[in-house]
Amino acid sequence: EPAKSEDLIKWRQSAYQVLHWNMDRLKANIDSPQYNKDDGIKAANTIAAIANSGMGSLFAAGTETGKGWHPTSVKPAFFTDGKKVGEVAVAFNKEANELAKVAATGDAAAVKAQFGKVGQTCKACHDDFRRKD
Amino acid sequence: EPAKSEDLIKWRQSAYQVLHWNMDRLKANIDSPQYNKDDGIKAANTIAAIANSGMGSLFAAGTETGKGWHPTSVKPAFFTDGKKVGEVAVAFNKEANELAKVAATGDAAAVKAQFGKVGQTCKACHDDFRRKD
Repeated sequence: EPAKSEDLIKWRQSAYQVLHWNMDRLKANIDSPQYNKDDGIKAANTIAAIANSGMGSLFAAGTETGKGWHPTSVKPAFFTDGKKVGEVAVAFNKEANELAKVAATGDAAAVKAQFGKVGQTCKACHDDFRRKD
Repeated sequence: EPAKSEDLIKWRQSAYQVLHWNMDRLKANIDSPQYNKDDGIKAANTIAAIANSGMGSLFAAGTETGKGWHPTSVKPAFFTDGKKVGEVAVAFNKEANELAKVAATGDAAAVKAQFGKVGQTCKACHDDFRRKD
C-alpha cells in the first residue's frame, strides 16, 4: 500500500532535520580551532546523500497541507511552480555533491567556502517555498 | 555552542525516520512486479549514508531521557552496555554498506536477501535498546 500523506510529510521534515544536524555539525567543525577531516567527511557525505535521496517523492499530491511531526511549512507555490522547484533542487544537489568532494580533500578553507554555497541554496529554497509562520 | 539535548534527540529520531522511509520504499520496490534499479540505489545509498553518518554523537551524555519530536524511546542500557551497542552498530553498518553494493548491481533477488539482513540488524538493536511503550 502507498505511504500515507502524514508519513510523507513526517519523512521530509525528518530529512530536513538530518540536513540541519549535519550543517550545524559542519559549521561547528569549520569554526573550531582544529578542523576534523573525518568528521567533515561524514557530515558532507550525509548532506550529499540526503540531496541525492530523491526527496521529490515525499512531496506527492495530497501533501500540500497536513501534519507530519508538525504542520507542513511548504508554500502552495512548491506544487505549482515546477520549473523553479527544479532549479532550486538542481542547485542544492550540485553544491551538496561538490561539498562531499571538497570535504574529501580535508582543506578546511575550501570546505568553508563550499559550505557557504550549500547554505545559499538552502536559503534560496526557503525564501521561495517555506512559510515563515 | 554545543547542540542542546533536545536537538540531539530530535535529530536521532529524524535519522531513524529517514531509515524508515527508505526501508519502506525499498520493500515496496522489491515487492513490486518490476524492480526499479535506480530507485533501489537511491534508497540503499541513503540507508548506508545514515549508517555511516556517525549517529553515536547524537547519544551524548544528557540524552538518556528527554524529548525531541517525542519522548526518547532509548533504554538506559544503551548508555551502559557499550560493548553490545558497538556490536549492533558494527553489524548495521556492515549490512547497510553491503546493501548499497548489492543495490548497485540491480539484482532484485540479491537486494531482497540483503534487505532482510539489514532488517535483522534493525530488529536486534530495537530488541535490546528501544522501549516498547
